[in-house]
Parts: sequence; structure tokens; C-alpha cells
Amino acid sequence: MRENKVRTLWAKGETAVTGWLAIPSSLSAELMAQQDFDAVTVDMQHGCADYADMLSMLQAISTTDRTPFVRVPWNDPSIIGRVLDAGAYGVIAPMINTGAECRAFVEACRYYPEGGRSVGPIRAGLYGGSDYFANANKTVITMPMIEHKEGVANLDEILATPGLDAIFVGPSDLAVSMGHTPGFDPQWDDVKEAIALIAEKCIAAGVVPGIHVGSVACGEEMKRLGYKFIAYLSDFRMLQMAFTRAMPSFRAGVPSEVAP
Amino acid sequence: MRENKVRTLWAKGETAVTGWLAIPSSLSAELMAQQDFDAVTVDMQHGCADYADMLSMLQAISTTDRTPFVRVPWNDPSIIGRVLDAGAYGVIAPMINTGAECRAFVEACRYYPEGGRSVGPIRAGLYGGSDYFANANKTVITMPMIEHKEGVANLDEILATPGLDAIFVGPSDLAVSMGHTPGFDPQWDDVKEAIALIAEKCIAAGVVPGIHVGSVACGEEMKRLGYKFIAYLSDFRMLQMAFTRAMPSFRAGVPSEVAP
Amino acid sequence: MRENKVRTLWAKGETAVTGWLAIPSSLSAELMAQQDFDAVTVDMQHGCADYADMLSMLQAISTTDRTPFVRVPWNDPSIIGRVLDAGAYGVIAPMINTGAECRAFVEACRYYPEGGRSVGPIRAGLYGGSDYFANANKTVITMPMIEHKEGVANLDEILATPGLDAIFVGPSDLAVSMGHTPGFDPQWDDVKEAIALIAEKCIAAGVVPGIHVGSVACGEEMKRLGYKFIAYLSDFRMLQMAFTRAMPSFRAGVPSEVAP
Amino acid sequence: MRENKVRTLWAKGETAVTGWLAIPSSLSAELMAQQDFDAVTVDMQHGCADYADMLSMLQAISTTDRTPFVRVPWNDPSIIGRVLDAGAYGVIAPMINTGAECRAFVEACRYYPEGGRSVGPIRAGLYGGSDYFANANKTVITMPMIEHKEGVANLDEILATPGLDAIFVGPSDLAVSMGHTPGFDPQWDDVKEAIALIAEKCIAAGVVPGIHVGSVACGEEMKRLGYKFIAYLSDFRMLQMAFTRAMPSFRAGVPSEVAP
Amino acid sequence: MRENKVRTLWAKGETAVTGWLAIPSSLSAELMAQQDFDAVTVDMQHGCADYADMLSMLQAISTTDRTPFVRVPWNDPSIIGRVLDAGAYGVIAPMINTGAECRAFVEACRYYPEGGRSVGPIRAGLYGGSDYFANANKTVITMPMIEHKEGVANLDEILATPGLDAIFVGPSDLAVSMGHTPGFDPQWDDVKEAIALIAEKCIAAGVVPGIHVGSVACGEEMKRLGYKFIAYLSDFRMLQMAFTRAMPSFRAGVPSEVAP
Amino acid sequence: MRENKVRTLWAKGETAVTGWLAIPSSLSAELMAQQDFDAVTVDMQHGCADYADMLSMLQAISTTDRTPFVRVPWNDPSIIGRVLDAGAYGVIAPMINTGAECRAFVEACRYYPEGGRSVGPIRAGLYGGSDYFANANKTVITMPMIEHKEGVANLDEILATPGLDAIFVGPSDLAVSMGHTPGFDPQWDDVKEAIALIAEKCIAAGVVPGIHVGSVACGEEMKRLGYKFIAYLSDFRMLQMAFTRAMPSFRAGVPSEVAP
Repeated sequence: MRENKVRTLWAKGETAVTGWLAIPSSLSAELMAQQDFDAVTVDMQHGCADYADMLSMLQAISTTDRTPFVRVPWNDPSIIGRVLDAGAYGVIAPMINTGAECRAFVEACRYYPEGGRSVGPIRAGLYGGSDYFANANKTVITMPMIEHKEGVANLDEILATPGLDAIFVGPSDLAVSMGHTPGFDPQWDDVKEAIALIAEKCIAAGVVPGIHVGSVACGEEMKRLGYKFIAYLSDFRMLQMAFTRAMPSFRAGVPSEVAP
Repeated sequence: MRENKVRTLWAKGETAVTGWLAIPSSLSAELMAQQDFDAVTVDMQHGCADYADMLSMLQAISTTDRTPFVRVPWNDPSIIGRVLDAGAYGVIAPMINTGAECRAFVEACRYYPEGGRSVGPIRAGLYGGSDYFANANKTVITMPMIEHKEGVANLDEILATPGLDAIFVGPSDLAVSMGHTPGFDPQWDDVKEAIALIAEKCIAAGVVPGIHVGSVACGEEMKRLGYKFIAYLSDFRMLQMAFTRAMPSFRAGVPSEVAP
Repeated sequence: MRENKVRTLWAKGETAVTGWLAIPSSLSAELMAQQDFDAVTVDMQHGCADYADMLSMLQAISTTDRTPFVRVPWNDPSIIGRVLDAGAYGVIAPMINTGAECRAFVEACRYYPEGGRSVGPIRAGLYGGSDYFANANKTVITMPMIEHKEGVANLDEILATPGLDAIFVGPSDLAVSMGHTPGFDPQWDDVKEAIALIAEKCIAAGVVPGIHVGSVACGEEMKRLGYKFIAYLSDFRMLQMAFTRAMPSFRAGVPSEVAP
Repeated sequence: MRENKVRTLWAKGETAVTGWLAIPSSLSAELMAQQDFDAVTVDMQHGCADYADMLSMLQAISTTDRTPFVRVPWNDPSIIGRVLDAGAYGVIAPMINTGAECRAFVEACRYYPEGGRSVGPIRAGLYGGSDYFANANKTVITMPMIEHKEGVANLDEILATPGLDAIFVGPSDLAVSMGHTPGFDPQWDDVKEAIALIAEKCIAAGVVPGIHVGSVACGEEMKRLGYKFIAYLSDFRMLQMAFTRAMPSFRAGVPSEVAP
Repeated sequence: MRENKVRTLWAKGETAVTGWLAIPSSLSAELMAQQDFDAVTVDMQHGCADYADMLSMLQAISTTDRTPFVRVPWNDPSIIGRVLDAGAYGVIAPMINTGAECRAFVEACRYYPEGGRSVGPIRAGLYGGSDYFANANKTVITMPMIEHKEGVANLDEILATPGLDAIFVGPSDLAVSMGHTPGFDPQWDDVKEAIALIAEKCIAAGVVPGIHVGSVACGEEMKRLGYKFIAYLSDFRMLQMAFTRAMPSFRAGVPSEVAP
Repeated sequence: MRENKVRTLWAKGETAVTGWLAIPSSLSAELMAQQDFDAVTVDMQHGCADYADMLSMLQAISTTDRTPFVRVPWNDPSIIGRVLDAGAYGVIAPMINTGAECRAFVEACRYYPEGGRSVGPIRAGLYGGSDYFANANKTVITMPMIEHKEGVANLDEILATPGLDAIFVGPSDLAVSMGHTPGFDPQWDDVKEAIALIAEKCIAAGVVPGIHVGSVACGEEMKRLGYKFIAYLSDFRMLQMAFTRAMPSFRAGVPSEVAP
């Protein structure tokens, strides 16, 4: 079965950086997959890809060796099975707040006896290889999101889930659940403490901590905390930022660093 | 009929700046239409939008007051009629090298007696209003591309075309036709001279000169030459540049101007 | 944040009329949005729009100032979150029969602390504005459907749900659950009594009653009962009725009121 | 090969009525195909169906025994071949103004030796049957549009085209080319005379005259003139008319003939 | 209401054979529907059709008299309602392991009083006829999958579900749940015994047993066991097998039975 | 720039075998690309892929190292430019009957000074590499179709076209143009002589001869004649043949070579 390069990086103690796709297009997916990422994640929750988009976006990503991840819209075995059958090598599930939710999620990602995933890896077999069934359980990465204070409170039972590979922190939603406003790279002390605590507990439990960041500076901080899977902005957000920054330069006719 | 804001800007002697859409998605189209542009152009030639994408992208643009333009894949009355019926207020046609080609193009954009466009402005009627037919010929902007030395050689006869509103220079193809390599903002003297000449002749003929640029600096130069319709980069190109620039900062963990 | 015009009408004691879209096309959506409606609802339950259709249909509706509603296929936080992120200003959820179902529905529509909606309003931010998060909870309309006798029986507990804005009656399903046949504007006494009772209880609870009707006469009756959100037929049904009525005239060659 | 029912009607001296599809949806196509039409035409010129829509719309029409027609966007052998291979039993081509254009059109619809159509009737073989090639030339209906005064002037040479089955008059464009405004059922004398003349000459030449009408009254008039293929309104137009008529009744609360 | 031909076959004691569609295309669906099947099943679980594909595939199947089935991705009333409204005459639901799950499934397929399906059979009404509501409960076939040893253990309670028509065995998943590897036509004794037992119990309970097979030989064996609904391979699998078998012949230049 | 493996095979005197895609799905495209082909061709003429399908199918093919070809629907610079910009490494154009048509075709495939292709290789740049422009003219394969007796008659002038790489024979159309019936592997003497003559003249002119075959036996014969680019059946045809052959075995319950 084709290697999961994110696992390989982790095995070497290295950090994987993932691109994040909110625009539902296989063209921007292929463009992003050619940037210097280790993985590329199709976001089916807040991003606008539906199943058919996701399928063609995974194909576009597979023209490169970037590892394909999907964030599913919800912790639902129906769509989890479908993105895995489409060839996702990692699944990120939003709003996992309890151990029971985490177990349900991981079992939806795993074949018997570790879970209840149904067998029929149609594109996954094309992508992963004919020995997909035999190796899928140890190849596919399960990555529930901790993005609510309730999830932080239940972190120990969540981390005890058999077959759990990693955690993905949603800092924006986490901050909201703690009474703050949303946005990349929250700077409130209680949120930062929670983010540090999650990394610490994950590492202690042998689970890889991951997180979404919006800046180089925050990325560095997260690496220092031990985060080993880092999503950096998104196609949508980067496009928005780039033009928002560049247009004043263009209108004024004054070149700048971001708009030479 | 709804106003063509690009015409209004021109009437006031001002310059219109257009966004350029190569990614075939109504989401990125709507995002781009919210940036500080005067027009937004769907590129059906080198961009990846087909007819169905273009239709939904024009709808997305129409959630704002940006003027919708389409670059058609070729000087072909079939697709010219379809993009106009879909609500384009400006049509850009590639590789117009002779006066005959230009006349055919303009006539495809105009109702009788100025041309042979067939009547049936299905979405154009929704967008433009119920008096669309009466006003379309004086509202829709015709903008053939000069992007080959042959077109430059035939510029006088092209500029003499009745109903011609503007010219759009394709600097990259123009440079190629003059023996150089492609790319934004060519710096060869002969190409620059041609670009200056086109502006000069257009202005003399009462035709608005337009051009595609890849930088603020080049945009300024073109404004000085009298260009009044300027396309600035594209969604695809800006996305590519932004990540290409930012990833080294992110990998190195060193914030920069483009990746704070 | 962009105003929710349906709320504004309600604040003035007025009735909002919504168009209803069953055909999965952004063209018919834009056409309908130009008719004299206050809102336009994309029906993802019995209508044939899937997520990608819905997204482009909301964009088409947003070319006008009609308020965009979506009926989701089921009371499921996954799709509720997705239609809100796509810019729906009102969500209609089918078959809400208990208070617990209603609370789950409303919480899926609301950000913390009123609910558990995840933050990431990708197109909703473009449509609603940059202050979307701060105002969404008081802007988005929550509208569960009472369309089963069980829901009528549990109406008091349903109406007690915090954050509930309105109720949408499905008269056809309601009639079926009471042992009758489906169809617009049911005339059985027990169904009519239930419809009157729902309006009465809603008004008493400060919840806006809404309903789907198939005729002007029934619309009038519902307004008299206090219904303030009225869906009138649908694109599919109107198209079917129009041709079914007109073709006999056309075949016979005898003009009529519906086919002059 | 499956019968062409429009030909059968003509052979009995009867008139065929066609529905007209401008909305690019296989759902509205199937709905329309269940109305009392003899044929249903997918409009790829002013309607919004592109190739992929057209294919699924022909499949939807083929769930009934209505004869599938397509109006191609232009007189172009590329799309003519593709709609025929997709199973169209009649092709309507816009703006045929000369005998040469008509011959090119008819030859694009016919296999050797009557024309140059390439063989590969992929869906046409599924729909028409395994003997498609042997019978296509005598089954498929060729129907160029006369919709410009130039076409009227050249009618004799157009009608002399070998393999020509029928003519389809576009009254709106025809009126425009004669200096009038567009719309269904033009009432200018010169246009009416042209329409009468076309019917007369067609009948004399053994070519079936067809036309698009917007009312029962005009339909009757056209039947009297000998028109045997009549398109009646369209899905888009009927939907627009129906709501435009019904909403004032609904808003006023006063039932009417069109909105009971 | 249009007849369900699979029911008719069963009533005569005959076996129905279904095609199986994993490729999300209405073209391959129409091609398959012209093969010698009694039913054609769109697979939305392991196959790649999403809702929009499924809708157009059902339309393509309906150009023939093959009975349309859909395997839904999960036992979820949302998608079950949508495929029924789209015109499916049989629903296959994966991984039904308990009586409670089976009851929930069957109730999602049935109108009141036999279940809670919401009324609005938009395409189903076009396909089935105007008396769809009155006859749907006795026409639509409910077919949960037994594909886990837990389902076998709970078979008696599953078979006791009111309104249950048939069972569909997933032999590959069943084998996996018994500790074996997946694949068509499992030959382990315990799996074969379970498959025999299921047939026996179904027959005793008056429920039709169905199963998926990958070979003629296995099909024969299943018919002997009493299986009356047999899925034979799939478009995807047959295409894969055909080229995998034929290419060595083609490369070697040696014709064979499978590649003459 | 990424290598064109078909050119590499030819340089070694070897034959390239291409798969042929008529079903418009990126899933079947990826499946076919994993079969033992050297190239995979998306057929936009008789196959049902439109531009958007073609784009995603090329991406699916690019997950493997098969060389992507496209047959365009017609000899039209608009679509030729678009398939090249989408990343096609070979273009097959139907019905090239004269030297002038061949020159127009080849020039549409080549950048200045060899032709007039416009520069903007959006996905081609992603696929081919950043040096695409510099190498495209010598990488992209131009392959006009000889499929009419007129093309055979004009073969010498066609073969004299500068920049011509190969010829693709359409045996079915060729037979039709010679008065026979269509189908794979025509056995009429005059057609066979023409096919032999084309190979001979191509080889003499240094142009690679290619052809479409329907059997191993015919493939062998063509290799003997010197054909070095061979299309073998298609996904659609193979699927049709496989089920047509297997269903009688399945119905009869008698295993056969094609249906074990």
C-alpha cells in the first residue's frame, strides 16, 4: 500500500504542514498541491467542496505526492466512509467533545476488528493499491478536532481512544467556546493555556497534536509546543489577504513588499 | 438598463481595474468581486471556466456592483452570443489580428443594425433589465485583443471598426510574437514600444486602450501611457505567488512582509 | 451585518412571502428572486438541489435583496452548518416533533453560548459582512417544521425552545399524519383546527407562525389566522400547473385566461 | 431504429407542438416532457444548457416518448455532431441566411454520401437502436432557422438544399432584422407578410414550416398559414409569466383566473 | 402507479438480477440499463455517485423499463427520503445489525401510518404517476443489508420488522466481520453457512433474500439457496476485469476468448 | 518539462497503446489509466466528455504516468488551445481532409513561430513544468485524423505539413466514406488497401501512423503495417461488450470463459 508520508514524517519526529482547500475546484487543489506542503486537506465543513468536488480534488492532489486529508462536515459514518473510499489518507472530524464521540469516529475509520467501516475502497484501492484492505487500519490517520472547552475537559477520555492517531485543534472555535471572538491565532491567556495543555497531554498519551494557524509566528510557537501537524491558512484566506493587501498599493500606484 | 460602470469611469476620464478569474468557481468569483476592483473578468480562454462555470460566476459577481466581463476562448459568434446572453457587460476576444476579424467580432456583439447578434438575452435581461434590447448596443463593451505583431501592423484598420469601444493588449503573447519569451510585464524595447504605440493610436482613434499587468510598477507605467482598463494579475496567479512566497518563511519559521 | 429583511417585516407586523425553489438551477433561482417575493427558499428536502446547487442558487438570489432561506433535508447539524456558512439567513428544518429535536435544531443554528455551531462562515461572511459572527445569532431565523400530529401534541415544549424564531407548518404532511391524503391547502376540519391552533399558540409564545400554501384563497385565510411567513407554491409546481392548464387551450386553439 | 414521431405526425398532415427548455436542468426537462407536447427542444443558444446539461436533459426527455430536439448555439459542425451523437432527433440551427450556410448545416447532420457527419452515435445508438447508422439520414430532422431578412431574401436557394426537412422561423429576430423590436408574436405588417411568405414557399418546396409562438391566438394563426412545427413559449418564459401574473393576486389577496 | 417489476418477478417466484453502478455517470447508467438486467442499482455508498449524479442516473435508467434501486450511503432518513423522492423503487441500506436499526430504516421508507417518510415525491411523482402516494408503501422495496456477524446474530428480530420486503447480503463485509478478507464470493465455511442460514430464515419469514455475487458459478449457488435478488458485479469491476484480462492478450498479440 | 512518453517509445521504435475514454467520469478515467496502456485519450468528439469533464479526467490520468491525449470535437483553434492549456500532451483532430486543414490544425497546436497558439498554459504549466513554453512545441504531439477518402486522396499534401507528428486513422468513418458500413476493424479490400497505403506513406514521410482497433487480431495486423499508435476499444465499448457477453452465461447459469 502506498505510504502515508505524514506518518513517515511523524516517525522521524518531524512536523507535517498541510495546505487547506476551501475553494471547491480541482484546479486550485492541484495548484496548492504543488506548493511546499506535506499534506493537502480538502475542507468539507466550512469549505465549499461537496462530495463530487472532493473526489476530483483528491484526484488533483494525487497528481503529486502530497498526502490527501479531508475534513468531513460532521462526525458521521456515512461521509467518513465515503471520503476514505475516495482515497483520503487522513480524516479530520469537527467538534469531538467526548470519549464516546471519539470512539465512534475512530471506529468509522477502521475496518474490523478495530471498527465498523464497510469494505469497498473504490478509488482508495486505485490510489492506495491492491493491498489496501490489509494495511488501511495502520495507514489512515484519525484526527478528531478539539475545538470546544468541553472537549478540553474530556481530553483524557478522548486520548484514551484505541486507534486514535492525532488531535487537531480548532483554535478559533475553541476561543469562542471560552467566551472570546473567533479568528486565527487567538491570544487570550486561557485559550493559549488550553492549546499548550492539549499538546502536553497528547504527547504524554502518544497522540500527535495538530493545529490550524494563520501566521508564521504562530506556527513557530506551535512547533515549540510540540504540534506536529500544522495547517497554514487556506486557499480562500490567502487569496483574500493577498488582494486586500495588494489593491491599496495598486490603486495608489506605490509598489510594496506584498505588491511589487 | 443597468449602468455599465466601466463606461461611466471612462466617461469621467478614469481608469477601470479588473480582477481576473482563472479558477472555475463561483466562490472565488464572489470573493474576488468583493475586492477593490471596478470590473471582474471571467477568463474562458486560458482560465478553466466553461460555460456553466461562467454562468454561475457571473451570478456571483452580480451580488456586487462590479461590472462583469468575459474573455471568450476565441472570436466565435457562438460563444460571444452566449456570454452576452448570460449577462456579460464587456467581451474580450483573443488574437484579433485584422480589421476583418475585428468587424466580425464587433458585429457578433451588436444587435441589428450594428451587427448580427441574435436576440434572447435570457440572464442578461434579468441582470440588465427589461429594456436590455434597446440599450445593449450602447452598453456592452467590445474589446478585441491585440496580442500579436500582425495585429499591431493592422492596428489602423482594426481601430477603424465601427462600434469598437476598446482594445485589450496581451503583452505576453505580443512579446512571443516578437520572438521573446512569455510572462507578465515584458521589458524588451520593441515590445514596450509596441505597447506605447497601441495606446497612442487608440487614444487618437477614440478607442480606450486596456492591458494586463502583473505588478504595481507596470500598472503605473501603463496608466502613464494612457491605458484606462487594467487587469491586475489573476486569482490563480496571486494564489500561486502568495504561497510560493510565504512557504519558505513558514518552513524557516521566520516571519516576513508577505508572511507575518 | 446585512439586514435580515424578513425580520424587519415581522418587526413592523407585516407578512413575508417566500418563493420556493425545487428545480436545482441558479437560473430559475435568479428568475424567481426577481418576482415579487420577500424571501426565496431553496428546498433541499423534497426539491432537487444538493449542496453545490444550493450554493450557486444562494448566490443567484443574492443578486437581489430577497432574503435567502434554505429548507435542509433533515434536522442534522452537518447540513445546517453548511447552509448557514453558505449564507442562508433562515433555516427551515423538516419533521420537528419534540422539544428535544427543536432544541438540537436551534442549537445547530446558533454560535456559543446559545448553541454549538462551528465558526467558519465562508460565504456567509462575504454575504453578511465582516461582523457576521457578532450578529449571526440575532439575524439568522430558526424555523422548525410542524408537520406531524406528534409535533402538534408537543407544541408547547417546542415553542418553549430558547432562540426559536418561527414555526413553519407543512400542511400536506400534517394532513397525512392525521390520516388524510397529501396536497396543498387541506380542507379537513381536524387539519384546519390544528393549523389554527398552531398559529394561536405561536402568537401567544411570541413565535412567528409560517406555512406553505397553494392558492391565493388559502393565503388569505392563513393571513387571517396570523401567519406571517407564507410560502406560495414553487417553481416546479407553478411550471407544471401553467402548462397543464395552458396546453388544452393551445391544442384546441381557443385562448383562455391562463393561455391568451 | 426508433421512430421519429414528429415525422410521423407530418406524414399524416398533422402539426407537432414542441416544448422549449431554457432552464438547464434535467428535472424541469422531465417535467416538461410530461406535458402535452409532441417534441421537447433543448435550447443551447439563448437557453442556458451547455453540453453536459443537454445530455442529461435528452435522457430525461427520453423517459417519455416525446421526440428530442436541440437548438444548437450556432451553425457549427462540432456541436451539431455532438448533439446528434447525444440522441437528438431534430436539430435547429440559428441564423441560416444563405444557401451555402444551409448546405453546410444539412451536411453536418447527414452521414455519407449525403453529408460529412462522423460516425460514433454513442448515446444515439442507445436511444435510436443498433441500426442507427442505416436509418439516421432519413430519421433526423434538419431545421435551419430563418430569422433575418437576408434569409428571407435567400429563401429560394435555402429551400433548394438537398436533405432539408423543415424551416424554423424566429419571429423575434426576424422582426429585429426588419427594424422592429423583439418579442413573441410580432404584429408588424412586413413581418407578418414575411412569415406568411415563408410558409407559402416552404409548402411549395415540400419543406415543413415551423415557428415559435407566445400565445394560443398566434398559434392558431400560424396553423392557418400551414406551420406544422410550433414551439410554444418556454419553461423560463412560462414560469416568469405565471409568477408575474399571480403575485399581484397573491399580494392583494384576491383570487383570479391565473391564481385561484 | 407504475409497476415495480422486481415485485412482479417475485410474485411469480422468479429471480431478479440487478446491475450495479459505481461510476457516477448517466451515460454508463443508460448503457447498463440496456443490458439484460431486471433492475439497476445506483451505489451511493462505495460507488461514487452523489445526489446530483444519482438523480440523473435514475433518469437515465428510466429511459428503459429496468427497475431503479439505490444503495444509500448509510441508514439515514435524510438521504433515504431524497432517493425515494428522486424515484427509487427499491432502497438498499448498509450495515443493518439490529432490529431497531431495521425498523428505523423501514419507517424512513414508508408513509404514515407505516412510517414517517415526508410527502413530496417530486420526481417520483413524474416517474411513478399521480397516484404515487396511495401506492408507494406497497410498491417501494425495503432491503436492509446483512453484512456483519452481529446482523446475523440478530436476524430473527430484523426479520420481524413490519414492512420489511427483502434482505441484501454483503458477502464481502460479512466475511470481514467473521475474521476473513474481503472479496466477491467468499469460500470460507462459516461465511457460506451464514449465507445459507440467512436465505433459510428469510424464506421462513416471508422475506426475499438477496445478495451480491461476482461470478456465474456463485450466482447459481445462490439461486439454489433461494436468493431471488442478485447483484452481478458492477460497471467499475467489470470494466477493470475486462481490461486487466484483455491487455496481456493485446500486448502479446495473441487473441484469446476474452480478447478476440 | 515532463517527458512525453509516447515520443520516447516512438524514438525507440516501439508502439504506444492508448486507452480511450468515452464515459465522462474522472473515476473511470483513473481506473483506465491504471490499466496497461501507454497513453489514455479523452474523446470529446463521439465520447461524452465536455470541457469540465475533460479537465478532471486529465487530472485523473495524471495520477499515473500515462500520457494524456485528447480527441477534440473538431478542428477548431478554440478547443485545441483549451485542451492543450489543460495539459494534453497529444491532440487528435477529426476529419482532416486537406493540407490546408492540416496546417491550420498544427498551427493551432504550436507556439510562435511554428504556429499561433496563445500562451497561458494554466494546468499545462502545473503538469508539464515551469519550462513548458520553451519545450511545448517539441513535446506536444499533433495527430490529425485521416478518416475520409478525401483525406486519403490528399495525403501527400497533408503529410507535407511542417510540425506534423503523426496521423490517426479512423477506420470506421473511412469505410463509410468509401461506401461501406461503420464499425471496428473493417474488412473490405479497398479500406484495407487505404489503411496499408496510409501507413506506407506516413513511414516514408517520417510521420508516425496511428489507428483505432477493436480486436487483438486487428491490432497485430496494424503493427505489421507499421502503425505505432494504437487505440484499443474504449471504456464504453468494452463495458458494453463485457456485459453483453456475460449476461447470457449469467442468466443460463453456465460459466464461460468471459463469465466464469
